[in-house]
Amino acid sequence: MKFIDYDRVALTDGFWKEVRSRNAAVSLKNVYRRFAETGRFSAVACVRREDPPHIFYDSDVAKWLEAAAYLQKDYPDAEIRAIIDETVDTIARSQLACGYFNSYYQVYKPDKIFTERTEHELYCAGHLIEAAVALDACGVNGKLLAVMKKYAEYIYDRFYVKRDTGFTTCGHPEIELALVRLYTHTGERKWLTLAQFFIDERGKRAEEIYPTVDRTYDQSHKPVREQTEAVGHAVRALYLYIAMADVGRLTGDDTLVQVCETLFQDIVNKKMYITGGTGSSNVGERFTIAYDLPNQTAYSETCSAIALAFFAERMARIGNKAAYHAVVERVLYNNVLAGESLDGKGFFYTNPLEMHAAFARYARTLPDAPYQPIPERVEVFGCSCCPPNLIRLFAQIGGFAYGEEDGVLYVHQYISSRVSACGCELSVQSEMPFSGKATIGVKGSGRIALRIPVWQSAVSCAVNGAFCVPETRDDYMYFSVEGETCISLDFEMKPRFVYANEKVWADAGRKAVEYGPLVLCAESADNGGDLASVEIPSPDHAEIGAEGGFCVKIPARRLKSDGALYSYLPPAREAFTLVLRPYYTWANRGENDMQVWFL
Amino acid sequence: MKFIDYDRVALTDGFWKEVRSRNAAVSLKNVYRRFAETGRFSAVACVRREDPPHIFYDSDVAKWLEAAAYLQKDYPDAEIRAIIDETVDTIARSQLACGYFNSYYQVYKPDKIFTERTEHELYCAGHLIEAAVALDACGVNGKLLAVMKKYAEYIYDRFYVKRDTGFTTCGHPEIELALVRLYTHTGERKWLTLAQFFIDERGKRAEEIYPTVDRTYDQSHKPVREQTEAVGHAVRALYLYIAMADVGRLTGDDTLVQVCETLFQDIVNKKMYITGGTGSSNVGERFTIAYDLPNQTAYSETCSAIALAFFAERMARIGNKAAYHAVVERVLYNNVLAGESLDGKGFFYTNPLEMHAAFARYARTLPDAPYQPIPERVEVFGCSCCPPNLIRLFAQIGGFAYGEEDGVLYVHQYISSRVSACGCELSVQSEMPFSGKATIGVKGSGRIALRIPVWQSAVSCAVNGAFCVPETRDDYMYFSVEGETCISLDFEMKPRFVYANEKVWADAGRKAVEYGPLVLCAESADNGGDLASVEIPSPDHAEIGAEGGFCVKIPARRLKSDGALYSYLPPAREAFTLVLRPYYTWANRGENDMQVWFL
Repeated sequence: MKFIDYDRVALTDGFWKEVRSRNAAVSLKNVYRRFAETGRFSAVACVRREDPPHIFYDSDVAKWLEAAAYLQKDYPDAEIRAIIDETVDTIARSQLACGYFNSYYQVYKPDKIFTERTEHELYCAGHLIEAAVALDACGVNGKLLAVMKKYAEYIYDRFYVKRDTGFTTCGHPEIELALVRLYTHTGERKWLTLAQFFIDERGKRAEEIYPTVDRTYDQSHKPVREQTEAVGHAVRALYLYIAMADVGRLTGDDTLVQVCETLFQDIVNKKMYITGGTGSSNVGERFTIAYDLPNQTAYSETCSAIALAFFAERMARIGNKAAYHAVVERVLYNNVLAGESLDGKGFFYTNPLEMHAAFARYARTLPDAPYQPIPERVEVFGCSCCPPNLIRLFAQIGGFAYGEEDGVLYVHQYISSRVSACGCELSVQSEMPFSGKATIGVKGSGRIALRIPVWQSAVSCAVNGAFCVPETRDDYMYFSVEGETCISLDFEMKPRFVYANEKVWADAGRKAVEYGPLVLCAESADNGGDLASVEIPSPDHAEIGAEGGFCVKIPARRLKSDGALYSYLPPAREAFTLVLRPYYTWANRGENDMQVWFL
Repeated sequence: MKFIDYDRVALTDGFWKEVRSRNAAVSLKNVYRRFAETGRFSAVACVRREDPPHIFYDSDVAKWLEAAAYLQKDYPDAEIRAIIDETVDTIARSQLACGYFNSYYQVYKPDKIFTERTEHELYCAGHLIEAAVALDACGVNGKLLAVMKKYAEYIYDRFYVKRDTGFTTCGHPEIELALVRLYTHTGERKWLTLAQFFIDERGKRAEEIYPTVDRTYDQSHKPVREQTEAVGHAVRALYLYIAMADVGRLTGDDTLVQVCETLFQDIVNKKMYITGGTGSSNVGERFTIAYDLPNQTAYSETCSAIALAFFAERMARIGNKAAYHAVVERVLYNNVLAGESLDGKGFFYTNPLEMHAAFARYARTLPDAPYQPIPERVEVFGCSCCPPNLIRLFAQIGGFAYGEEDGVLYVHQYISSRVSACGCELSVQSEMPFSGKATIGVKGSGRIALRIPVWQSAVSCAVNGAFCVPETRDDYMYFSVEGETCISLDFEMKPRFVYANEKVWADAGRKAVEYGPLVLCAESADNGGDLASVEIPSPDHAEIGAEGGFCVKIPARRLKSDGALYSYLPPAREAFTLVLRPYYTWANRGENDMQVWFL
């Protein structure tokens, strides 16, 4: 399946257009301001300062540049453009003669370049390569591409030709997928060769262990083709798997492709939160074991969710299945959107599925408190990988919507937009995620395939006003169109209970409520406390409301004990109306209890 | 209420006699062997060695000495006696001329004596004082008392008279309660004065902060009389509260007594596991906030359970209430007994209420794995405070059974034993904890009060064979007896559901099963996995079994999903017979899943 690039997809109106506009108007600028204030942008000048930059500051800047690149066409901004150009010029000026560029190593540890297997040396290079490709592809700035190609040549020479470096693979995968992008953009085969080299070498050297932790942490515990379970740091893992999927596809390496499928299934069938979150443990931000999905301490890093969306997209490229897009949908509408506040300014690094505000307050009072994800979004973190990652994702969100294969134009995600492909001009008007109604206008002749979401409880479909039972195969509806066609879809959307596998001990005996692609949650701002003790007898009799934004009001009961800590008397059940809201909107009204799984 | 000392209570047969015999025959010797092997006993010689002892090794030895003292009358053992005498002689020889003794400080940091506010300098002194009092009171060895009185004099002189030490209160409370014991044993008022001084000074000096952590950790965040919530390291807290209760009672300090009552209620109404465990977090082994009682990561240190039993006993001394003894009962039959393996050799430091063996195995593979209590008992830990603490507790277990007040002889715990008090000779034959039947034979004239356990669902009582409805007040049945009297009791014992307060989010929608004083649990060795998904519809129709020890077989259902990680289909329910066993017997059959709270 070939995806249609985000820049060929014109968002028209509706949900994602709003997200992307906010992204351009607020988030891009706000993140720049906070990154500038915290010295991330000035760091690329490579001037020694008293407060050395973090080793991964280059990647923060790079992701911001990438996001800015994607937004320039639709949201041109001279100020942003000037920042881009100035930053690129600074990087170009700071680059060493050999091609090397890293604002930390070349200033603070020049003698250690490519000698320590640190986490982020090639990782930073990878993000800068991605930024360079994006800036060039968008016609915003071609200079960084030249800079980064020179750097990539140096990496190629040292790691692949001379092999005289102190380590072989980077502690944090990213360079691999970036090199694939460089290959795809330039057509220069050596970048694919180098990406493949890094992938092939991973896990082959017992001595290459990320300091102080184990080899599963960065997926170096065994050669990648022998890996069958998603392990270690979730973002590292997923960035690696993305590159493995790319290299597998581009080199026709079926073994690698099969490994990717195995890893993907391991994640989505055993290690993924209902929100699409992965990496359940704060310790090492990692995948743990199958079905270990604690809600209160869920780490579920925003970057990891973003990476899972891309991994699913890469799997669809290899061999399309509706299930991959269902994962993309789950991730985007839940964990990913939750990563940003509704005003576009605040960000979550971690995304728990249960919050006890009193515990969060307690955790803040102690230097050695038990782990608790933060209860409110903040504008910048010390380790601020997630904010610019979100911005660059939202900036290219249209890229998840469409694909083409064998002359058929596929609609994977219902995002209000226009696109031209396979001889058709398609215009999608979608009410997602709050209603399952969508109108697809087509001009031209061809074949159209529309994905049937997993959450629909019924589909009604009309072509040019006439009821229609379309040809359906593998969760796509196929239509042959000619001239002007209007396809009206209505995927029935209603609150549905979702049950976790009985092996997920944290959710046993509980259910979540989904509404279309949205996982719903309850907050104490609407419902008072003790949300873990709320019982929802049935998903029926729910009402849709709009007070304070979209909400679902559903009859529920609150357990109420006799007040003792332990009692032989079963708790009473007090009926009340529970207000549920989309998970992604939580924590926008101050510190708050929150619950996803109910009795 | 005056308790009747353990040494006036002759255990006859039954449950606790067996525990105590095993304690003398196995645990005391085994712990000695492991402590000797790990250099704890040789450390008291105060000879510098390559592998310095831990700063708290003295306390391990002291607790062992105390346990050995209590057991010598009923289980005389020449070998143990020789070890006691030799150890005491070594300590005496190693004591500095000024009276100071600490095998760590005087060898490795002699210039730092009483200058660093470390955790364990006076804590070790406290345990040695307790050992000295025990050895003297039991007539086993009087020499250590002289040694420790000399040391106590030195402490008194430096801390109370000269006040020239680098800190005022010890980071780990213990010295306070030990000084009270020294006062009670010797009648010398200065020890009570010194105990009171340490209590009064606690929390008054902002500069006295245990390094790297906050002041709640060791209850130094405010003066003790202003403390209203149990905070910080649970064992530290409870050792302090024990001393506060003692000093409050002995000095008639009503404020202190009231504070103790407030703290006691805070613990048992908001911060105690159903097993009697306290200190829910592994981070700082501490009390967290009200109702934060996670099951899988429950820290619930064995020492903390022991300390809570003693705190409840101290509260009963101040003003008796059956509720205090109910807490003692809950703690002893559950968390405390679980601390030791059924063979008397292995010990738990932490006592979770839910175990996922696969997760425990995973946690062992990683240097930075998420926290998980260990799934099997071990013979010794690096920090091995719990094993000798259990031995000394079991050695004096009879001391919890009886009290006298206003000429009435109280039976608080039904432990098969004989005792003489209040003009009566009492002989209790009890089938606890596996049956509620008890026969109390009394010779002599007087008043007897028998506690009514909270878990009984009905009481039947006969005096000399005749059915009787005794005078009942505040959960005690009162009897006036004359000559020879036989009181037959039958507290109805059957499986009962227990529900946690709805504010305990970890237990919401769940129930535990108690049988008499025993909290029951399910293990995968009997029941297979996925125990969190087990539903028990009713506590009725249970059968008592004896396969592999006492067990309760109860109709149950296992949730069974369609196999997907998340599904719109509600799980099926497969009926089966769940085998429940006493919580304290868990983890005696290898690594094993375990569950206390059920759907």
